[in-house]
Order: sequence, then structure tokens, then C-alpha cells
Amino acid sequence: MIKKLASLFKLDSTVIKGSGDDCAVLKFNSKMRQLFTCDMIVEGVDFTPRDNPYLVGRKALAISISDIAACAGIPRHAVVSLGLPRNSTVSRISKIAKGISELAERYGINIVGGDISSSPRLTIDVSMLGVVEKKKLCLRSTARKEDIIFVSGALGGSIKGKHLKFEPRLKEARFLVRHFKVNSMIDISDGLTQDLWHILEQSSLSAVLYESLIPLTKEASGLRDALYSGEDFELLFTASRKEAKKIFAAKSYKFFPIGEIVSGGPGLSLVDKRNRQIRIYPKGYRHF
Amino acid sequence: MIKKLASLFKLDSTVIKGSGDDCAVLKFNSKMRQLFTCDMIVEGVDFTPRDNPYLVGRKALAISISDIAACAGIPRHAVVSLGLPRNSTVSRISKIAKGISELAERYGINIVGGDISSSPRLTIDVSMLGVVEKKKLCLRSTARKEDIIFVSGALGGSIKGKHLKFEPRLKEARFLVRHFKVNSMIDISDGLTQDLWHILEQSSLSAVLYESLIPLTKEASGLRDALYSGEDFELLFTASRKEAKKIFAAKSYKFFPIGEIVSGGPGLSLVDKRNRQIRIYPKGYRHF
Repeated sequence: MIKKLASLFKLDSTVIKGSGDDCAVLKFNSKMRQLFTCDMIVEGVDFTPRDNPYLVGRKALAISISDIAACAGIPRHAVVSLGLPRNSTVSRISKIAKGISELAERYGINIVGGDISSSPRLTIDVSMLGVVEKKKLCLRSTARKEDIIFVSGALGGSIKGKHLKFEPRLKEARFLVRHFKVNSMIDISDGLTQDLWHILEQSSLSAVLYESLIPLTKEASGLRDALYSGEDFELLFTASRKEAKKIFAAKSYKFFPIGEIVSGGPGLSLVDKRNRQIRIYPKGYRHF
Repeated sequence: MIKKLASLFKLDSTVIKGSGDDCAVLKFNSKMRQLFTCDMIVEGVDFTPRDNPYLVGRKALAISISDIAACAGIPRHAVVSLGLPRNSTVSRISKIAKGISELAERYGINIVGGDISSSPRLTIDVSMLGVVEKKKLCLRSTARKEDIIFVSGALGGSIKGKHLKFEPRLKEARFLVRHFKVNSMIDISDGLTQDLWHILEQSSLSAVLYESLIPLTKEASGLRDALYSGEDFELLFTASRKEAKKIFAAKSYKFFPIGEIVSGGPGLSLVDKRNRQIRIYPKGYRHF
């Protein structure tokens, strides 16, 4: 659907990359690109009425920071549209705003505007601008054959709380592109297999994952949870074997190699603990 | 409420103007500022389920173009978040997208990304980027004593259809700042008196309007409609008497002088058709 809609829209030469990646990439100046992204969260879909409104506001902003991180950028400015039920209390709205403002301040993001509308269910849409050095920009479409696939942390069980409290992997992404050559990157929002599929589809390549290498959170119910559940908000990235060795040896942050990129595709398989290679299919959270 | 929330957010020196104007104003390069704005529309509030989805999509984008116009800028890029009820048909979604894409193309705007979420009621949030020459930027806070107040077109009765079909006054705004010195500008979204009040409050001045000068649409039910109804999406701007004469004499577009800025304030009064000056108060559409 998104692909079909995106094809309607004509783009001029100031757009380096339109929809289809974590952020749009726009011309900015001789050294930098501008990143532009938006994410909407809705009560009953992305959070429940019982969730702490401070954490709901925080999540709305954190998702966009994670998108900027996935392009290896630095978040700079955001605008926030709030759709509020008519019975919203000032206390609840203030908590949402506090969740937004505290995270924004910590990441040096200016909240420069917004819109408030009435809406039957609490809805928060954040649009964020960032910048990235031309040479450090990471996309989904640029994985290479024989790349090693990494994740920035353990997967699964996010629904038990991490989805509201996760720390966007901004420092990790910037550390990676400062010290190593990363070929492709995305953040895991829809689930490992579905987000890896975006890289494979856009790079026209396949991947082999190794069950024994996939790190699970202690909240994860098992492998399926790690493969198919959404909202881990970890980085998923690929780098050449040579770079991979250096990344694996990095002291500042721990990155987990979980598989490799192979030719042809897109296609996806898993080598299980009994060393059988089985074909698997991208699945994850779908809104419809 | 918005003011209270805005005070939570700390801004750095790359922000020329945060929330409180039609757009945020950001540093861009030596000659230009970047403009950033967002607007959310929700079914049942800003349009009805029976409205043509093509026009609903069009409206979502047109509102943001009007905000960029109010700052005298040029719209460049937008991202669109769609909250869709689960029973949305592909045909309805395509019509919304067509309403957005056709208007975007006509105004040279790149739709560079988006997000689709499920939502109990159709919700469209558009965030838009634009640029404006430093010297042409128009704000709400810079009206001057003895300025003449203008509107770009007739007011009132927008609910009868104009709110879905209005042409954002972008050409008019650019014409104004290319040829004249405009001191302050806003677009009328909440209603003449309420939006004029934003100028008066931020400029610490008062205004006198002349009933006989206020142009009414043929759909307007009367003066009250023109003063207090929202969504006219006309430009409301002020210029010195000297500039006002030239603006009034312009051949390309017709601008209507409706009053003048006076010292002190904020305050607002109306000279009625019997030449009585009466104090009036800002009122308009309120979401809560």
C-alpha cells in the first residue's frame, strides 16, 4: 500500500531519497544531508489507555529518534501533533508533554511547534528533522553480498515494557559510522524478519540467519518472538567481513552478528540449532 | 494550553522562532530560513465522513501550504501520517492520496515520506518544510502602530464548502513580499478576530476594524460569521500606510483594507455602520 501510494508522488532533484527508507533524505549543504521522518502512534494500537502518559509521550519522540539513528543521523528539530479526547485532563496532557520534553532535551532536540486537535483516541504524531554527513548516511538499499548482519541488542518481548521505555540507539549508530564502514542499516520496528526483508528487497539480496546467534531478551518467549515481534527498536545493520571483525571487537558497545548476506533474492533462511537450513518468511506487526 | 506546553521546551540558537507562529523558523543558510509546520485533521472535527475523500486529502495539504504562505515562504517537502479506520477501502485511500498528490504537484511540493497507522477515525497529519528569504520572512509579532490591516479575500461561510476547496494564498503572499514591505502576517484558520488577536498579542498593539470594509463571501450569514468563523484560509496582514496605498493599488491581486493598528494593547474594537466604535473580543473555533 505504502509503495503504491509513494509511486503517485513526483519528486524533484532536491530529494535524494523519498519514502521507502527510515527517513527521507534531502539536499542540505555541501557536506550534509537533511533527514525528515514522521511517526504516528494511536491509543489502543501502539499503547493502551492504562499506560503511563509520560512514557507514551516519550515513546512518540523515541520512535522518530530511532528512525534518524537508523540513517546514522543526528536529530535536530521536531514538531508534535496531538489529537486529544475531549475528556483529557490537564494533568495527563502535561505528563505527555513532559515525556516528550525530557527526552528531547537529553538528545538536544528542539520541539519547535505543534498542533492540537480533538480526536476520539489519543493520537501523537511526531515529525523530526535531522542531519547526517553525506559520507555517513546509511540506507536500506546498500547491503552487499557477504556482508555480516548485526543487531545492536537482544530481541523479543518488547510488548512487556521495552516498547515504552527503549533507548533509541543513537549513540551506537553514530559510534558505528564514526569508526567503521556500515553498508546498510534499519531499525527494528516491525520485527527482525520484516525489517531485514526491507534491506534484502531494496538491496536485491538474500540472508542466512543463525538461530544460535540471535540474542534474546529475558522477556522473549522464544525464537519466534525474536524473529517476528515488533518494536525492539534495535539497529539492524550489515558490514563487510573485514569491518565486521572490527565491529565485533569494539569495546564501547556490544554488537551481535546474527547472520550473513548472500547473493540472489530477496530470500531469507535460518540455520537452526541442529544445523538444518530452513526457508523462513518475513512476518511481523501489521496494522491491517 | 499550547503556550504552557511550549514553555516546557528548550530551544538552541539554530531556532529563530519556535512555536507560536504559523511555522517554526530555523537557520538554513546565509540567505534563507527554513520553515517547518504541522497540521492534523480528524474526521468528525475537521471534515465529515460524507465529505469527498479527494477533497479531504487536498485539505490536509492545503492547510500546511497556507501556513507556509503566512510566513511568505515557498513550500518544498512534506511527510504525511495517515490514521486509517480498519474498514477503509482501497478506493477511499487512493482518493485521499490523489487529493494530496495533485495539489502537491501543482505547488511543486515533494511528498517524501509518511506513516500509516490504524485509527478509529480517519486522521491525516501533514508536516511541511519550506524556505523563505531572511528579508521576506513575515511573522505575527512584528506589526507596527498605524499599520493598515488587510485581508486577501472575502470572509465567512467557509463551512459551506470553501474549507475543503480553498486555494492557499501562496501566490498572493509571494507577490506581496516581492513588491511591498509587509510588517506582519498570519493566515485565518481560527477566525478573523482570533487570528488578528494573535498578531495583536504578539506585537503588543491594538486594532480597529471597520464593519463597512470587511468583505463577506456570498455564503457568509453576516458580519458575525466573518468575524468569528474559522477556516477562511485568507491572509491577514499589516503594512505601513505608505505601503498600504501601493498594495491597495496593485493590479495583480485584490487586497482588502479592513482596519488599522493602534498603540497599546492587545485590544480590539469595531466601528459599525452607524459609526459607533465598540469593543469586541476574539472568538473563533476552539477544539476544547
